[in-house]
Amino acid sequence: MLDRTLRAVRPPDAGAVARARARHDALAKPRGALGVVEDLGAQLAGLAGTCPPPVPEPAGLAVFAGDHGVHRQGVSPWPQEITAAMVSTFLSGGAVVNALARQAGARVRVVDVGVAADLPPAPGLLDRKVRAGTDDLSERPAMSRTEAVAAVEVGIDVAADLVAQGCRCLLTGDMGIANTTPAAALVAAFTGGTPELVTGRGTGIDDATWATKVAVVGRALDLHRPDPADPLGVLAALGGLEHAATVGFLLGAAAARVPVVLDGIAAGAAALVARALAPDAVGAFVAGHVSAEPAARLALAELGLRPVLDLDLRLGEGSGAVLALPVVRAAAVVLSEVATLDEVAAGGA
Amino acid sequence: MLDRTLRAVRPPDAGAVARARARHDALAKPRGALGVVEDLGAQLAGLAGTCPPPVPEPAGLAVFAGDHGVHRQGVSPWPQEITAAMVSTFLSGGAVVNALARQAGARVRVVDVGVAADLPPAPGLLDRKVRAGTDDLSERPAMSRTEAVAAVEVGIDVAADLVAQGCRCLLTGDMGIANTTPAAALVAAFTGGTPELVTGRGTGIDDATWATKVAVVGRALDLHRPDPADPLGVLAALGGLEHAATVGFLLGAAAARVPVVLDGIAAGAAALVARALAPDAVGAFVAGHVSAEPAARLALAELGLRPVLDLDLRLGEGSGAVLALPVVRAAAVVLSEVATLDEVAAGGA
Repeated sequence: MLDRTLRAVRPPDAGAVARARARHDALAKPRGALGVVEDLGAQLAGLAGTCPPPVPEPAGLAVFAGDHGVHRQGVSPWPQEITAAMVSTFLSGGAVVNALARQAGARVRVVDVGVAADLPPAPGLLDRKVRAGTDDLSERPAMSRTEAVAAVEVGIDVAADLVAQGCRCLLTGDMGIANTTPAAALVAAFTGGTPELVTGRGTGIDDATWATKVAVVGRALDLHRPDPADPLGVLAALGGLEHAATVGFLLGAAAARVPVVLDGIAAGAAALVARALAPDAVGAFVAGHVSAEPAARLALAELGLRPVLDLDLRLGEGSGAVLALPVVRAAAVVLSEVATLDEVAAGGA
Repeated sequence: MLDRTLRAVRPPDAGAVARARARHDALAKPRGALGVVEDLGAQLAGLAGTCPPPVPEPAGLAVFAGDHGVHRQGVSPWPQEITAAMVSTFLSGGAVVNALARQAGARVRVVDVGVAADLPPAPGLLDRKVRAGTDDLSERPAMSRTEAVAAVEVGIDVAADLVAQGCRCLLTGDMGIANTTPAAALVAAFTGGTPELVTGRGTGIDDATWATKVAVVGRALDLHRPDPADPLGVLAALGGLEHAATVGFLLGAAAARVPVVLDGIAAGAAALVARALAPDAVGAFVAGHVSAEPAARLALAELGLRPVLDLDLRLGEGSGAVLALPVVRAAAVVLSEVATLDEVAAGGA
């Protein structure tokens, strides 16, 4: 399934991009006056292969949840059990991402791809657990290559299901206590950033915990010597199950030519893996925001993505992606609903 | 009316701000993890005097339109007639701001406060023309102090009408060919910025036109020697009628304790005047975006406002304000709809 998905990822339609640029220049506004919104519109046109592009709605957000063996190294002040507790909160609709998604009109899917607890079946919970949390990446590979591929394919599946249900925009979300540590390691592996450079404060850690986190990332890089030319190997060695599923989700969106809005650093790390597997996939990616995590800015720069929002968010869950969604929709609406200068001159609009 | 409005502007309710901060800290998320969205939520609570604050909807956007005597100096490549043509486009619903407002669920009011043309009556057009365009600010005061006050009061009226119609969030919009020149002069007057520093490319001008614009701003500052301690004098000497109306609109929102989202540089300039008249008014201001105009960044820094968006927009019309609106709504929704950590721990959410 992964191979088929990778083969389905194709470059943007250059003709549609050019038609979008030409239309922007013809609209009743100065050239380029909508800045990044015009870039987004051209991207949506290139992805859809048509101009004006369809308005990317309805939107579907997948929160992939997993746990992390590296938690035992003391990289997070939060107990691992919070991952499962937050999954329950997503299911009951009480989390930040639920509130924001209701407001933005996005549906939310919660996917257990690797929580280290037996979650009771619940309406809205997709049980696609590959394993109950990863191993400690600072001591051994976080997972096997087979498990990594299985988790990637979970993400592909979820993307395909949402698209089959009519979603025309996907949004990434993640939940996993300690998951900024594997994300930082992945970003280091693909950007060459040092542990000090990629390691952030996650959910808000003190200096001692930060130093521990830097050391853990450094040990992991020394141990695994990740080779960016082998993206699945890097993912298996350093990643989390939710990062792997997000890789598949991103690839699935790109293969379906549906835009996918990236939430913070988990998505940024996954996007680097996805791009290494299928470079043209980036044409489907929109950076919802740049998080307060230093690795996030590094990842987006490496991907060549400009974030829609820069609001010091560092929550995850998909919160930054869903906050950016209205701007993505607006980019399509501008191309379909705004009059041209000629129409204005003719008094027709 | 202006005096009464100024007296009605009061500081934020510190108790409500503190309750919003405490609630943010109690929600099912790490402290501070929503960054600027938390700051916005606290601001909304302080303005409303209650926590959680009401969700700021419905939203009403006013586009104030005016013309500028300084146009004759060659500061813009666009003919002055475009102002009236764009007013028609707003009324027919074909402009960028119409498309974005429909998508965001905001109503749009178009106000002729100073267009240099006789506009035919039309449904949706509010004829509140104070005069048919300003005088050339590089040669004489743009308008009289009486005219400036009249235009400010138009803005107060429009804000009060929208609030009376149920709007719980106001958004600024402006249309006026050449209106970044008076805006730059106003920002220079209130920040001490030099003509070179405050003068931008507007709708996209070449080097020669930019040099002309810098010289015009410099001549205006030399001629009028604006005194920031006399804000109405500065406004009359340097401003446009749409800037003056926006000053009133901002003050009207603040007096009604309704948040007002500022679009680009016209609003930034007006906000400096409004703050000089009533310092506490800033508590109602949300910077929708920071435009590509250099004076915009300068104005927001002086006001102490962090923009919601930074997307190289330079259109005006209210486009950046309406794009930011969903984030402002989200800030209120987070405080009213998200479960607390205690509720999560008790399994109740």
